[in-house]
Amino acid sequence: MSRSKTPSTFHARVTVMPRRAVLDPQGRAIHQALKRLGFKQVEEVRAGKSFDLTLTAAGAEAAAAAVEEMCRRLLANPVIEDFAVELVDGAGDGRS
Amino acid sequence: MSRSKTPSTFHARVTVMPRRAVLDPQGRAIHQALKRLGFKQVEEVRAGKSFDLTLTAAGAEAAAAAVEEMCRRLLANPVIEDFAVELVDGAGDGRS
Repeated sequence: MSRSKTPSTFHARVTVMPRRAVLDPQGRAIHQALKRLGFKQVEEVRAGKSFDLTLTAAGAEAAAAAVEEMCRRLLANPVIEDFAVELVDGAGDGRS
Repeated sequence: MSRSKTPSTFHARVTVMPRRAVLDPQGRAIHQALKRLGFKQVEEVRAGKSFDLTLTAAGAEAAAAAVEEMCRRLLANPVIEDFAVELVDGAGDGRS
């Protein structure tokens, strides 16, 4: 069985957020705007980025490792941002 | 027991992505950059936004409903973007 050599298609969701210790002026501005709209119950907003990637890989582990490398090299700035990689099933378009 | 009236703190993760039918020039630019870096296995990139909100609400349902209202009024543009709201446990800082 050479099935493990056949690349499959994977969908990954990457979330990049400012580190806790880093100021987040965009999140703060959104927080103020929400309060002006009447959403007084909001205590904090952190603003980050989200990426949906479609890629081919030999397996789920290889796919996740490749996406983590993409985060370190391009998608996130590890000095000021944290990132999380999540492999999702299907086309990932089942959002509300 | 008047516990249901006591507001609790909730953490919500909002993901805002361009709708499938909408062009995503930022995602396309990131896709090209990844290919230039040697990540030829990437087939598509969609670029969106992510927000972490801390808010008080009477319960999980009320918290989710409030955040969905914030999405419709400020965080997302429903004409060109889809959004998803997810309530997360704890402080939501357990990212890699």
